[in-house]
Order: sequence, then C-alpha cells, then structure tokens
Amino acid sequence: MLVKNAAGRMIETNIAGKKVKPFKGARKYKTDSKLATLSEALKKCGLKDGQTISFHHQLREGDHVLNMTLNTIRELGIKNIRVAQTAMFNVHEPMIDFIKDGVVNRIEGSINGVVGDYISKNPLPHPVVLRSHGGRWGAVRSDELHVDIAVIAASAADSYGNCTGIEGKSAFGPICYSQIDAMKADKVIVVTDNLVDYPCRFQEIEEIYVDYVVEVKDIGNPEKIVSGTTKITEDPMKQGIAHSCVGLMDAVGIIKNGMKYQSGAGGISLAVTKYLGEKLEEKNMIAEFAIGGITKHVIDIYEAGRFKKLYFGQCFDYYSAKYLADHPGIPILNVGHYADPYARSRAVDNLDTVVLGGTEVDTNFNVNVNTHSDGRMLHGIGGHQDTASGASLTMITVPVYRKTNPIVREKVTTITTPGNVVDAIVTDQGIAINPKRKDIIEKVKGKINLVSIDDLKNIAYEATGGPQEIEFTDEIVGITKWFDGTILDVIRKVKM
Amino acid sequence: MLVKNAAGRMIETNIAGKKVKPFKGARKYKTDSKLATLSEALKKCGLKDGQTISFHHQLREGDHVLNMTLNTIRELGIKNIRVAQTAMFNVHEPMIDFIKDGVVNRIEGSINGVVGDYISKNPLPHPVVLRSHGGRWGAVRSDELHVDIAVIAASAADSYGNCTGIEGKSAFGPICYSQIDAMKADKVIVVTDNLVDYPCRFQEIEEIYVDYVVEVKDIGNPEKIVSGTTKITEDPMKQGIAHSCVGLMDAVGIIKNGMKYQSGAGGISLAVTKYLGEKLEEKNMIAEFAIGGITKHVIDIYEAGRFKKLYFGQCFDYYSAKYLADHPGIPILNVGHYADPYARSRAVDNLDTVVLGGTEVDTNFNVNVNTHSDGRMLHGIGGHQDTASGASLTMITVPVYRKTNPIVREKVTTITTPGNVVDAIVTDQGIAINPKRKDIIEKVKGKINLVSIDDLKNIAYEATGGPQEIEFTDEIVGITKWFDGTILDVIRKVKM
Repeated sequence: MLVKNAAGRMIETNIAGKKVKPFKGARKYKTDSKLATLSEALKKCGLKDGQTISFHHQLREGDHVLNMTLNTIRELGIKNIRVAQTAMFNVHEPMIDFIKDGVVNRIEGSINGVVGDYISKNPLPHPVVLRSHGGRWGAVRSDELHVDIAVIAASAADSYGNCTGIEGKSAFGPICYSQIDAMKADKVIVVTDNLVDYPCRFQEIEEIYVDYVVEVKDIGNPEKIVSGTTKITEDPMKQGIAHSCVGLMDAVGIIKNGMKYQSGAGGISLAVTKYLGEKLEEKNMIAEFAIGGITKHVIDIYEAGRFKKLYFGQCFDYYSAKYLADHPGIPILNVGHYADPYARSRAVDNLDTVVLGGTEVDTNFNVNVNTHSDGRMLHGIGGHQDTASGASLTMITVPVYRKTNPIVREKVTTITTPGNVVDAIVTDQGIAINPKRKDIIEKVKGKINLVSIDDLKNIAYEATGGPQEIEFTDEIVGITKWFDGTILDVIRKVKM
Repeated sequence: MLVKNAAGRMIETNIAGKKVKPFKGARKYKTDSKLATLSEALKKCGLKDGQTISFHHQLREGDHVLNMTLNTIRELGIKNIRVAQTAMFNVHEPMIDFIKDGVVNRIEGSINGVVGDYISKNPLPHPVVLRSHGGRWGAVRSDELHVDIAVIAASAADSYGNCTGIEGKSAFGPICYSQIDAMKADKVIVVTDNLVDYPCRFQEIEEIYVDYVVEVKDIGNPEKIVSGTTKITEDPMKQGIAHSCVGLMDAVGIIKNGMKYQSGAGGISLAVTKYLGEKLEEKNMIAEFAIGGITKHVIDIYEAGRFKKLYFGQCFDYYSAKYLADHPGIPILNVGHYADPYARSRAVDNLDTVVLGGTEVDTNFNVNVNTHSDGRMLHGIGGHQDTASGASLTMITVPVYRKTNPIVREKVTTITTPGNVVDAIVTDQGIAINPKRKDIIEKVKGKINLVSIDDLKNIAYEATGGPQEIEFTDEIVGITKWFDGTILDVIRKVKM
C-alpha cells in the first residue's frame, strides 16, 4: 500500500515482504536538564515500595551516598526496599535503623562489620545474598538481580551524567563496579560533589545510561574513602607467611618473565607484593602485569620496571587513585572485564597466581571468608571465588590458629570458596598443597617441605583444644552463592 | 526440601519463597585460545546461508577486511549474506561480484561510489537500507537489525580480543562504530594485523564480547585508510560559502565562550573550522569543545587554546589518529554516545551549530545527500540527520547550481534530512533561513542580507533551465530511514 508520509513522499508500507513504518516527522532534540535533587530524582525515577536500589562501595568507610539515599527514601515514606550494594561497611551502621523502620527489608550484597553483626542476630525476612564481585555482575547482567534504580556515586560528573571516580576532592579511583548497573537498571541516578563542564574527561560511566544527576555537598569523607597509606604487616609471623608465598611461587616456577599477578590489599598480600617485587629484581625478571586492587606498592614495582603493565581495578590508596589521574592511558579493568562469569573471557583467568586470605580453612581446602568461627556474618566475598577459580596457583594465607580458635579445621563454618579451586594453604606452620594438584607437589619436591592439611589441623587442635561447638537455629541469616548463581552454603542464626 | 550440594552442605531448595539451585561444583577456568584463521573463525561462529555479517568502515578506501571476509565466505560456499557495514567505498568494488555470485543478496548500510552506481542500475532483491550513524546504532541496539556475526577490524588487538584502532601500522583512530555490534551480535570476530601482548593498552572493544581473534598480514592499505592530510578547499566560491557560515554563526551570536561545535571533513567544512578558529582568536573567545570527525585543523585550534576540549570520534587524517595515541586521556566519543536515538542523551544535542553538505536542497529545506540528480545512489547518510536534529543552527552549504544542474530546487530527488530540522542554506548566492526559525531571522536582522529559498531556486533555474526530468521505474534500489526507523524516502531505479 502506498501512503504519503510526513515528508510528503509516497511510501510503500510493505517493502520486500517486510512491513515498514512511514516517517512521522522530525524535530530538534534538546536534552532536558538531568540535574535534580536526590528526592526529585528518586521521585522522577518512579520510586515505589519494594523496589531494588543499587550502590557501589568504592567510597568504602567514607561513603555518604548509601545512607543519604536511604534517608531520602525514608523521608519519602517508601518501605521494603531491597538494597543491592556491592559492599557495606561500618559507616553504614544507620542501615540498622533503616531495617528497624521497615525502609529496608532485603539486602543482596557484601556486608562488612556492624551491620553484619546486627543481621546475624536479627535475620531479615529474606536472607542476605552474598556473591563474589564477578557473581554479582553476572547476576545483574542475567536479571537474576534486577535493579530498579542504580544510584552511582561519582567524584566528578557533568550535568548529563558522564562521570568518574578518578578526579575530584573525593576521588576513589575508576568506577569499576557500576557499569552493569548503569546498563541494566531501569533508572540511573549519578550523585556527585563535583559537577564539571561537559564532557567529563574520564567517564567510566557514560551519559547514555544516566537519567538524573544529583549534586551534593560531599559524597564522602575523603579521609576514609581510600586509606592514606596501605601498610605492610609488621607482624613477623605474617611476614613469614608472605615470604613462604613468594617461596612457593618461586619453587613452582611462576616467578619468571611474563608472570601474571593479582595483588591484594590485606596486610599479608601487600607484603607478598613487596617481596615479589624484590624477588623479580633479584632474578632480573619482568612480570607481564598486575591486576586487581592497586596500591602504591604495586605502582612502585611498575615504576621500577618489574611489572610491564598495570591493569587497574579498584584503588586501595589515595596514591594509586592520584597516579591514574596523572597517567591517563593505563587501561581500566572494570569488574565485568575482570570476572563476569558470562563474559566471553575473564581477565582473572590469565592469572598465574593469587594470594587470598580467609577466616577459616578446612581439611577439604574449603575456605571461609564470610563468617567468623562464632557464626557471625562479618565479611563479603569480594573477588575471592573469581580469582581462586581463575589463577593457576591459588594460595590462602592463614595462621594455623588465632588465640584459642583453630583456623585450620575439619569443617569451615561457611563455605565461601570450595576446596576444588584452592591449591595451597600457606601458614605459619608450613604449606599444605591440595592433593589434587599433583603437578604442584611434583614441582616443589626437594625445594619446599610440605605438610599435610591434616597435620595443620592437628597442630591447631592441639594448641586450642579444637573448635568450639556452636548451636545454630533454623533461621537463615544469609546465603553464599557460587558465581554461577548456585547456592554454596547457608549461614544460620546462632542460638543465643 | 533439603539436598546435599556438591560442596557437601545441606541446602534448602526453596529459600524465602524463592526456588534456588544447589551448587554443582567448581573448577579452574582457563580461557581457550581465541586465535583462529578467518575461515576457522567463521565456521566456529556457525556461519550459515542468509546470515547477517557486520563491519565498520573506519579503514575507508584502504579497507581489506570486508573483501577478505566475503572472499572467505564465498570459499566456504555460503550464499545470501546480508552485509551490514557502516559504510562502503570504491575499494569494495568486488562487492559487485559477490552480488552477482549470490554470496550477498542484501545490504543494510551506507554505500559510496561504484557499488552504489552498480546497485542503482541493478537493484538487489531487497532494497538497500540507508541509515544515519545514530540510526544504525539504534537499529542494532533495538534488534531491528540483528547481526549474526560482527567482524571488527582493529589496528592492534591482544589474543583475547581487547582491541583498538589507535595504535599500530594500520591505525585509523578509535574504533567508534562497532561497540553496539560487539554487544549485540551473536558472535564477534576481531581481525587485526598487529597482535599485541595482553592487555591491549587502548581497548575500545573489550574481550568480554569477543569470540575469535584473527591475525592477518594487513587489515588495510595505510596510505588509503586515513588521508595523509585533509585539504581546505582552494575554490574561492567554496571559501566564500565557508566565510558566510562563520558570518552567520557570528550574527546569530553563537561565536562566544562555551560554544559547542561539530566539525566535518568536507572541503567547505574544513574551511569553516579554520575560519572559526581565526574568528575565535580575533574575538578572544574560547569554544567549549569540538566533536565529530577530527582533523589536524581541529587539533590546531585546540592546541592554540581556542577549543577547550576535544571529544574524539572518527579520525579523518593520520595526524589526528597519531595525536590521540600520543595524548591518552582525551575522551573518546563512540557513535552511540554521539547519536544513539535510544540513549538517555546524545552528545549531538549539545551542539550550537553544525555545517553539513548536500547534493540537493529543496524549497521545503529538505536535503539530499544520498542520490545525485540523475537518480543514482552514491552516498551514505553519515551523521547528517543526527547532527541536523541536534544542533541549534544547522547549516547546509551548497552552490546554488553545479554546471547545468540546479542544486536548490523545488523537490529533492531523495529526502535524507527533512527540512524541519534544517535551519539555513548557505550558498554562493546568499543565505536562506528556514522561515520556521523566526528567532534566527530576528537575530541576524540588519547584520546579514538574507535571500528566500525561492529566490535561490529561481537563480538556479534561470542559470540551468531547471532540473532535468528523470523517469523512474517501480523497482526500489534503496530506502532512506529517519533515525527512528521510519521510512523517509524510497530510491527507485531510473528508466534506462
């Protein structure tokens, strides 16, 4: 059929067997201002009872944005929000009141510290869902975790929503957790304390995804956003464990040109990074790259020419955030690129080795990082599962026991990372290799004296009298998911 | 129900009213090599008769990748491919044989030159679909144009598919058309002549989307990929038009601090950019930014401090591609960010002004860039529609007539951009303002002598005797779509 379209042309409505729509008119487009107050933005986003609001945790203990947003939601009289933060810290203690007031009734995201302690004793009607960094990205990507409104803190943003964490007084390093929220959420709000001219120079999040831009006085407390410095452990026991890690890498033959390393930000991990740098120097080798959380220690090795490339994710100190602002062109590694289980490849799968921690380890090499031995849920999973499954040599650094508590034990309180992907337990009493890794055992023969995991457990039990029995109720506090979305373990409320 | 999962834990299969899946086991992940020959990669992607294969056009007249891929497809005995390139040039003349051989039977994408001439005389069974840059992005994003396999040329790539157009012997500037293909295509193949160590430093396309990486000797002929230099017109008539454009901008009050400018790569557009730089200098004003295709002329003004920021899209000369490699940190503007009609904002909507060309203009201010007055389809739409609808002052620069052909006429042969979004026709015989833009007419009163579009048409008709009548057949060669997917116009085969 021929019809006259809005341009005055006679147009077929069916061309080569396909129905087509005639032109209806053109107009000039102008982008309406995206600037709004937080309250206006939430209302314009259609905030309703029961919705899911997401946040990133890159402002860490300095974050103002999560509390500020939930305060506003409370003022708007909205209830039963599901909070889908990437992580929560002690600064988020007001969450306890939001829960008590019914503003929040579900949490899917990592919880560290006081809020975890509270929920451990007062479970929510829906258990907390704990996922790894990659697992959370995958859950949002696959709509397992649908976000209604993503609230993204930025240390600089233009009025159309191009934004970054690299520049500004509240700089925290590249935004690397929120890309998938920006892409998948129904609505996206950027919150910044630093409105810059268009276009924002760095833009980890692009305006194409952003509905509203909210300017506030402070997105956080700069002193607590990133540590001023990240300190290497001064504890000789921990230094010893760190040296053992580097010794094991060396014995396995990993410390060579082209080595690929994941650096962590814990005290022992930082020490491992430092000692690895020294070892590279001593052997005159150049590692290919370091990924993961970046600190001054990593940059020092890079500057010394011993890491050929940096591949930045989250910055753990101010120095590294500043370094990235001053050295544009270093590729930024967002969490999807790092560990999205549904991606066509994950950066973590390149790793030769990773050094991770744990609150407990068991004789099946299962690792717990989420709960303490008293049953309280006090930590998130982070990249633990992602890197453990990606690295060729996954090392867990723990003391065999802490005071009266055996860390190496028969059964971890909660499984965070299954023993199948854990290769070595590096302790103050020796190194145990997962018997499944015959290749590693073969390589270190004659170079390192290994101990069995049962021996480590026995040492722990002898020194402490064994683990304290805890009685659990049926109530579920939280669940740990493997990054494919399946349930690894259930965290139950302790009988009080 | 309680079941024992693969970690040995007793897990509910229903938690808080939600069915959950028990953990089935963990394993170490290794990314299989993505390296393959082009033929292997296409086969592994499941190439079949009738599929849609996409390409970008950033290698321009130097491109080897489109021909190489279709040759391989022919060797594999596959037929009836729909080619969804962002644009095609004379270098793609072999397309005529691919069409004759039945390898290709549909084209959705811009066509410039010989292939357009051929199809104008020998229409395909399905008309060519012409879309603007933004319209094509939107069509792929909305699945109006579903891509089975995206083949992405890169001047540097690592073996996992992180890739760029910024570095390497075949550098062509940032890949800015293919992001949406990478995200939406069922399969993605990166083709490069420069395999670099992981991770590729620049990565406009990330490995997370890439299935295979193909290394070839040359992705293109560097001498033809980007022009060595882009030359400003030496034709006094065209220089006059360019001066008139800057005069109009000035009269409208656009040339001021904070001005936002779209630069083009045509001879007149380049001259406008140069004269604008001089005018900014003279008035001591600083424009906010320039977007769009970038050339040395734009960078010169930026270096002189008269453009505060660059916002790079496609590079039109080697100088600008090299400049970007040497100055990391200049934000890259991909086509989605530039003009995706479905995005929450488009960069083009910030523009104060844009200077565009045309093959014909009519008295309703409709512009044709696709066909010549003899009816042949010889050019793509490019960013014409996108910027025209986004800029506050959209100027079309044309001579009133060319030899015996009236350029300003009663009715354009094909509507590319409807008159509703066209504000000024700037010619060698004066400037006509769209009567709908009373605001502009008011502003220039007493500063510029305007002519009516009918006067321009009359001058053209007097000098040429009016347009030659062309007789069309019913056969459809192509269609022009507005960027919202509706049909603006139909290009019919000329009776021969």
